[in-house]
Amino acid sequence: MRQGQYTISFNHPPVIHSTGVAGGPFEARGNLVDAFDYLYEDLYIGESSFEKAQKKLLQTSFEIAIEKGGLVKEDIQHIVCGDLLNQITSSSFATLAMDRPYIGVFGACSTSIEALGLAAMFIDGGYADTVLTGTASHNAAVEKQFRYPTEYGGQKPPTAQWTVTGAGSAVLKSQGNGPRVTSVTFGRVVDMGLKDPFNMGGAMAPAAVDTIQRHLADTGRTPADYDLIVTGDLGQIGRATSLDLLRDQGLELMDETYVDCGLLMYSKDQKVQAGGSGCGCSAVGIYGHFINEMNQGRLQRILAVATGALLSPLSYQQKESIPCIAHAVTIERQGVQ
Amino acid sequence: MRQGQYTISFNHPPVIHSTGVAGGPFEARGNLVDAFDYLYEDLYIGESSFEKAQKKLLQTSFEIAIEKGGLVKEDIQHIVCGDLLNQITSSSFATLAMDRPYIGVFGACSTSIEALGLAAMFIDGGYADTVLTGTASHNAAVEKQFRYPTEYGGQKPPTAQWTVTGAGSAVLKSQGNGPRVTSVTFGRVVDMGLKDPFNMGGAMAPAAVDTIQRHLADTGRTPADYDLIVTGDLGQIGRATSLDLLRDQGLELMDETYVDCGLLMYSKDQKVQAGGSGCGCSAVGIYGHFINEMNQGRLQRILAVATGALLSPLSYQQKESIPCIAHAVTIERQGVQ
Repeated sequence: MRQGQYTISFNHPPVIHSTGVAGGPFEARGNLVDAFDYLYEDLYIGESSFEKAQKKLLQTSFEIAIEKGGLVKEDIQHIVCGDLLNQITSSSFATLAMDRPYIGVFGACSTSIEALGLAAMFIDGGYADTVLTGTASHNAAVEKQFRYPTEYGGQKPPTAQWTVTGAGSAVLKSQGNGPRVTSVTFGRVVDMGLKDPFNMGGAMAPAAVDTIQRHLADTGRTPADYDLIVTGDLGQIGRATSLDLLRDQGLELMDETYVDCGLLMYSKDQKVQAGGSGCGCSAVGIYGHFINEMNQGRLQRILAVATGALLSPLSYQQKESIPCIAHAVTIERQGVQ
Repeated sequence: MRQGQYTISFNHPPVIHSTGVAGGPFEARGNLVDAFDYLYEDLYIGESSFEKAQKKLLQTSFEIAIEKGGLVKEDIQHIVCGDLLNQITSSSFATLAMDRPYIGVFGACSTSIEALGLAAMFIDGGYADTVLTGTASHNAAVEKQFRYPTEYGGQKPPTAQWTVTGAGSAVLKSQGNGPRVTSVTFGRVVDMGLKDPFNMGGAMAPAAVDTIQRHLADTGRTPADYDLIVTGDLGQIGRATSLDLLRDQGLELMDETYVDCGLLMYSKDQKVQAGGSGCGCSAVGIYGHFINEMNQGRLQRILAVATGALLSPLSYQQKESIPCIAHAVTIERQGVQ
């Protein structure tokens, strides 16, 4: 049912039955090793191109989520997924082998939460009992498409972020044990006129703030109602900017309970400038690390807010600014409501 | 509710309250002039690039659908839309001005029906009362991205299709008069190994057949239960192939009641090889022509099946085959059920 202007609250909140998270060799040296079910040692993931590697990552995360859930692919009734590559080819190609009805989505790095929110609607609405959702990014595939092939060795400013090589998937079910998706707040497109593709965090911060504010207004909650508010890939600049913007609106978030997957992903000795980014960043952080934390009882209720920068290389070349969006879901342990 | 393996039937089928359809100068000389609410005389649609022109077309269709429906943009609760350009920039940029929650989707040329089916779920599920959906394509923007800039004057084989410069949008409401979306059948990805980007119809035909068969099996209906089965952009090759494949499966479709928007779009003296294509093709045909026909009482129940080829230029260059998909919705006049 609708709650306020933007938020959909679920009367029959779906259970996150199982998740599958896969990553690359650089992520294996990072801070969130516990988030991964499988870590590849080779950046090519055994494939002949980085794009095929991204597809394979997503496939791996599908397979793990299904297997960990004690299911077979025939149990999946719909797949809702997307990614950042042109024409979301990783998702479409990975979905081919699954042989299930497929709903392709695009929300740039917000895809993890856009897909999770839609998948939850399929179940709460009574349209399905078992839905698979997921997304992926691959550092070299995404850098090549949006900026320069990494082999060029191009230098980046400190505001730039590092695309995570990772994929996260989740199986949602109508019944069972596990954390539940209790609401989704789909965001609107926000564009503050920023044009620097090397500062995505700064561009995305106002979208994150807009969706957080609207979610809180719609639900009548305050940040204190959440153990954590988790953003996807704001990075250092975006997180700081968003805290400033929230403060301007009278919302004082505490440092310990406002966390960003892009800042958690890597260790201090990994040179990722302002932090991690990409569809895989929030997927690994939320589908992996934070859902694990909830399963282990360390978190009761989180607001997961993934942001996306909706530019293309061409829109940048045509001197357009960077429209951004943020989608949010509430995830709660059973009995918390 | 679920009906069979793939189909979702709506207990509270949403009304197609109003539509808005815009097109370009070449379409103004075609067969479906009645489908358009507005026809631009200039291929640039008054913009400085073809990509911006595609965005403007989509915006125009949004505005017309809202205005024809006697609404203002604040009445729209969610927008579900997508397109074929990299990172679906037309949709994201057009949605910015709308200032409403936005769910970006990607299904290549099947986007028109993927978005319509999802939008219907928002309403049937009780998540919204008023949802806007739409998609667009622009011949020069899409040709440039997927094949060659049209200025090169590249020759095409007779199996190639012509991307429609057009946009279609629809406002769905929970109550009121008008044709209703009574079910959606989301398709699976089908790949028969075809690799020729100049024969999309041939590649997409098996996906159309798969979804039509599954829809009929799920609902227990036969082709005779529909006034028309309307495909998006199979064109001559794809339509003929799909008829053969359906016949092999024991389904004999009649020529008069199995129609393709890509074949209807242009007149005989327009050199479009195997027919029209692109997100705008099914949008103009279905949101425009066929919904007009239903509103005028000439059709009672149609199955609208839009197909999409989920390749990218890069997946083609990497010698991958072309995965395809088809999504279908049933549209019925009130009281027909």
